[in-house]
Amino acid sequence: MKPKTVKEIAEAVRGRVYGDETILIWSISDLSTAGEGAVSFVENEKVIEEARRSRASCLIVSEGFEIESRTVIRAERPKLAFAKAAQLLAKKRERISFVHPTAIVENSAEIASDVYIGAYARVGSFSRIGNGTVIGDGVSIGSGVSIGQMCELYPNVCLYDNVVLGNNVILHSGVIIGADGFGYVRDSDGYIKFPQIGTVLIEDDVEIGANSCVDRGALGPTRIGRGTKIDNLVQIAHNVDIGRRVVIASQTGISGSTVIEDDAVIGGQVGMGDHARVTAGAVIGSKAGILPGKIVRSGSVMWGIPARPLEEFKKLNAYFGKLPQMKADIDEIKKTIKEIISRL
Amino acid sequence: MKPKTVKEIAEAVRGRVYGDETILIWSISDLSTAGEGAVSFVENEKVIEEARRSRASCLIVSEGFEIESRTVIRAERPKLAFAKAAQLLAKKRERISFVHPTAIVENSAEIASDVYIGAYARVGSFSRIGNGTVIGDGVSIGSGVSIGQMCELYPNVCLYDNVVLGNNVILHSGVIIGADGFGYVRDSDGYIKFPQIGTVLIEDDVEIGANSCVDRGALGPTRIGRGTKIDNLVQIAHNVDIGRRVVIASQTGISGSTVIEDDAVIGGQVGMGDHARVTAGAVIGSKAGILPGKIVRSGSVMWGIPARPLEEFKKLNAYFGKLPQMKADIDEIKKTIKEIISRL
Amino acid sequence: MKPKTVKEIAEAVRGRVYGDETILIWSISDLSTAGEGAVSFVENEKVIEEARRSRASCLIVSEGFEIESRTVIRAERPKLAFAKAAQLLAKKRERISFVHPTAIVENSAEIASDVYIGAYARVGSFSRIGNGTVIGDGVSIGSGVSIGQMCELYPNVCLYDNVVLGNNVILHSGVIIGADGFGYVRDSDGYIKFPQIGTVLIEDDVEIGANSCVDRGALGPTRIGRGTKIDNLVQIAHNVDIGRRVVIASQTGISGSTVIEDDAVIGGQVGMGDHARVTAGAVIGSKAGILPGKIVRSGSVMWGIPARPLEEFKKLNAYFGKLPQMKADIDEIKKTIKEIISRL
Repeated sequence: MKPKTVKEIAEAVRGRVYGDETILIWSISDLSTAGEGAVSFVENEKVIEEARRSRASCLIVSEGFEIESRTVIRAERPKLAFAKAAQLLAKKRERISFVHPTAIVENSAEIASDVYIGAYARVGSFSRIGNGTVIGDGVSIGSGVSIGQMCELYPNVCLYDNVVLGNNVILHSGVIIGADGFGYVRDSDGYIKFPQIGTVLIEDDVEIGANSCVDRGALGPTRIGRGTKIDNLVQIAHNVDIGRRVVIASQTGISGSTVIEDDAVIGGQVGMGDHARVTAGAVIGSKAGILPGKIVRSGSVMWGIPARPLEEFKKLNAYFGKLPQMKADIDEIKKTIKEIISRL
Repeated sequence: MKPKTVKEIAEAVRGRVYGDETILIWSISDLSTAGEGAVSFVENEKVIEEARRSRASCLIVSEGFEIESRTVIRAERPKLAFAKAAQLLAKKRERISFVHPTAIVENSAEIASDVYIGAYARVGSFSRIGNGTVIGDGVSIGSGVSIGQMCELYPNVCLYDNVVLGNNVILHSGVIIGADGFGYVRDSDGYIKFPQIGTVLIEDDVEIGANSCVDRGALGPTRIGRGTKIDNLVQIAHNVDIGRRVVIASQTGISGSTVIEDDAVIGGQVGMGDHARVTAGAVIGSKAGILPGKIVRSGSVMWGIPARPLEEFKKLNAYFGKLPQMKADIDEIKKTIKEIISRL
Repeated sequence: MKPKTVKEIAEAVRGRVYGDETILIWSISDLSTAGEGAVSFVENEKVIEEARRSRASCLIVSEGFEIESRTVIRAERPKLAFAKAAQLLAKKRERISFVHPTAIVENSAEIASDVYIGAYARVGSFSRIGNGTVIGDGVSIGSGVSIGQMCELYPNVCLYDNVVLGNNVILHSGVIIGADGFGYVRDSDGYIKFPQIGTVLIEDDVEIGANSCVDRGALGPTRIGRGTKIDNLVQIAHNVDIGRRVVIASQTGISGSTVIEDDAVIGGQVGMGDHARVTAGAVIGSKAGILPGKIVRSGSVMWGIPARPLEEFKKLNAYFGKLPQMKADIDEIKKTIKEIISRL
């Protein structure tokens, strides 16, 4: 790694330096483990004591934040600035052209000139892999798959036939893209498989966490829009359409044909029925259940099973806790009324 | 692929042709992307406009459905008929006898004559694989495993020792069959593993989705009955017994020793406690929680956490939304009663 | 396997023999399938009939339990004693030094003398593997990984760079350790990845079920304490700190930076928000939802979404079922009061 000066980092993160801007920074670190040559950040006032004790050579702090006799970079959003500093300092992945001798690449596959393909990986016929992409050990790539530039597929990812990845896509280990959707038609003596011959389109800058699954569409495509981030163990069913810059936390499941528009934020362990729609920018709280066909309006924050607007959910949950008192009140009222009647 | 005439398709799906029964059909498609030579289907009246615009050469429609100047096949259940048409048109998997030179097959394994075993697959000692079965790249098969005929194991499936698959079983990538059940006995200084030496029996025509897990029984077997379909990321614990033609949607978890009888339908993200029983044909709604030991009666539809009959759940959920009004009513009543008492 | 006498087993499980202590025991079994030479156990009075019919050569029973003309070992906790008997009878894993010729082990990796490494496994540079450890087929081990002694990694496990496993760690197939945590910072035009450069520390005697994921810390470590047992499809997010002898059932998700102290018991499908804390010995019921930042006190048993103390939850759930009656009561009261007022 090549170090950067505090000045260079400040420029990259659009911050202003107070202190020695010539200090060399080699690494990023949290406050407690930082040492000489590390930059760290102070997220809020709560960690002020930790910040004072930190041995970081430079701290990224918010505009109003005061800390004595330290070299700091002031930035509007220190965590964001720190993430950008980390990008600046990150070892650039060298573009190397390397196909492990044990990788099995079909002759008809088109591999760009500087691709890395790890040991025991398989690339099927007529598949294409773009420049700068890294295919980890043991990755399985079917036939007719298209993978863009600068992607990273960690070991043991599986791509079924004909799925399409854009550029800068990151798939963590155990991700399965393009398995058959869960579609059957009941016949007199059991279930007949509904055809699952669609595909999966994953746009640029998508990251998908370990062991998550994105099923292929039944007839049309399943789509995940540009810049969307998906956590571990998430289920995306057939024909789901996810917009841009959507965030989906771990263990959430999206049923078939549901639409999630741009900039939605979906918590963990959420379940969404089929043919539902989350409009742009809506927020779904963790563990919420969205009924099939439900439309979640833009700007709403939903909570509970079945999901309701958060404010309503909080109010109802508070009343839920008052049920014993309400029941006691009713019983007391009934008694009082009896007395009143007897006195009339 | 070999094309079929509209007449041949109509016969296969038990429908009647209106129009030109000699048209050649090469593929299946949805209404919007269908072109010349494709058959599509019209599920209901809602898509009538789409159906009119569709370029499909043949449409499968329901008995009463009217659409002008098109070749149609009328069938009682168009979606079912379409699924059958898809089966008819599907490229028959050729039975080929091929073991990739990198596949590692123990000498004592018995491989039928026309089995496909992909690159880097491993087949342990004394395992058996039946005719027409396809073992994908990187699949791991332990010792003493028995796999029937015409099965398909997608890349990177893992079968632990001694598990048994019937015929026509489909396992998607990342499926793990036969890992140890989650059983421990607490001792003074921690947990001692309870033996997990049972097996897993998966009967004919079962399909299991990507990254799902079926644990081996502790002492006896875990069983999945014929024709049962399981979605992605599902957990089947040790000694679970699942009947025939059961459907289990994604991310559901079935705890140890629970029994699910024939034809039950289990939604997504359902959790079932141990030693529960779902009797034949019962329906469990998505996200429901079934308590340990609970018996769900045949014909019931259960919902909620803990699960209640759907009608009851809907009623209670409606009342739940009325809690603020109920509380306000109680407060108003108390006030009125005070006034009444003061007037007595 | 070498058989043990009933006497040897009784000594190992701290029980007392009634009957013939010279009988040779070769195997463990459940009551129904046990045959000659098998030991089984009687968990409680409910299975007494099954116990009578069992052909097991020896039964482990509780102190007060009576069963005629059978060789029994009386022990305080028969299930625990049976688990210990199983350990005694289990075939000891032979320590063998074997690296499959297809395994790819970097030159700089340090492999102890009696390690088993299966076919197509990969061990990255500067990684270390301790004595007696078994690395299954197709396992992917990154660079700088440290694995202790007597571990067992089942086929297709993935360890990212720099993760650390103690001794006697068992990882089932499909487990992913050290994938990037799910951390992003929102910028004007999308999400920027927050650095995920921490590690994962897994202490001795931990077992992790199939397809579970433990993410690496963002800057510091994610830790799983000694003797903790984790079921299948569990999600452990970045910087989570789990104590000793914790049990976590299937499909539970623990969000970032949450702390679970020693001896906690976490049910299945539980969701825990970030920065929460479960203090030592607390119990979280299946499907419970713990809010971010929530502290669960030692000794408490929590249930529901959001979680409440079990006793409170049960009470509220019972009142929930009474809502229709409460509403009817309120309506009746309102009517009565009107009548009263009209009579005044």
